[in-house]
Amino acid sequence: MRAFTFTGGDAGAWRIVSTTAIVGETLQNAARLSITSAQDAAQGSSFQWQLSGITSNDRYVMRPEKIELVAKQQGLGRPEASLGCFIPIRKTPEWWALTQDERRAVFEEQSRHIAIGMRYLPEIARRLHHCRDLLEPGPFDFLTWFEYAPDHEIAFGQLLAELRASPEWRFVDREVEIRTIREP
Amino acid sequence: MRAFTFTGGDAGAWRIVSTTAIVGETLQNAARLSITSAQDAAQGSSFQWQLSGITSNDRYVMRPEKIELVAKQQGLGRPEASLGCFIPIRKTPEWWALTQDERRAVFEEQSRHIAIGMRYLPEIARRLHHCRDLLEPGPFDFLTWFEYAPDHEIAFGQLLAELRASPEWRFVDREVEIRTIREP
Repeated sequence: MRAFTFTGGDAGAWRIVSTTAIVGETLQNAARLSITSAQDAAQGSSFQWQLSGITSNDRYVMRPEKIELVAKQQGLGRPEASLGCFIPIRKTPEWWALTQDERRAVFEEQSRHIAIGMRYLPEIARRLHHCRDLLEPGPFDFLTWFEYAPDHEIAFGQLLAELRASPEWRFVDREVEIRTIREP
Repeated sequence: MRAFTFTGGDAGAWRIVSTTAIVGETLQNAARLSITSAQDAAQGSSFQWQLSGITSNDRYVMRPEKIELVAKQQGLGRPEASLGCFIPIRKTPEWWALTQDERRAVFEEQSRHIAIGMRYLPEIARRLHHCRDLLEPGPFDFLTWFEYAPDHEIAFGQLLAELRASPEWRFVDREVEIRTIREP
């Protein structure tokens, strides 16, 4: 399964504790977050917002980085990882007009996006979903879902702060941070 | 507009003259090819096949290549470009498991994909559509549409032969070639 839908509404295993606009317009407050396959997403039921995206091949990672990532990372769904954070992001037209080498240079050589994320493994698990190339245009380019244990909440905040201070984030023109607690 | 639908059926400005499976399963024969925005694609009408994809940012092109491409290429819809060719392609799971640097190395350093295409500009105009990352899984990863004048039909065949002889094409496991003539 590669296509996932995140729904902010009255249902779902994750209780939403805060919705914060980091850059640009926020998303409406909702009580709970549901994560399903895109196929299973309830389209008729009431919700505040619904966003879909698809996991895909890595766009910037090189082989030595990939080997290290695969060795260190852990999957979603660990019993102790009771905190979740959903961060949809949109990048600027300037970002998308860069060529591959230019985007890689900003992403890693200047911003150390991969290296920063690596330092927080395996504690902070993460799944990236792409939504810029769906047939139906949506409001975001990427949806990232993070899971971690309460012991690592401060580290998670540091991870976000490091990334947001990087040159790459000059190309982010919309970002919302939705913190959740698993309460099935 | 970024999302396009190609429909093989009874309607459309392009008469299909041949449908050839290059690798893997073919597509059903159809009389005409219609190219519309994905939104305008007739979903109820009868057709033999329908494929959608979206134009996106370049995945491999570097800045010097981009400058040369933009300087040389011409758009679709030139009056003299009365021949069209639609080529849907799927790449293997091995391709998608490669890292970015490995894919770039096969694509350009080994296969000269960009350099080969450049030699046929501006005669052969081309638009690439991505469909691997749509929410609904489809049978192909890429849809490429080419337009050229009858004077350049032999050159177009050479372009295809050069690409198909390249190491990149070892990663192609389905390819169909649909030749058309504009007959509105």
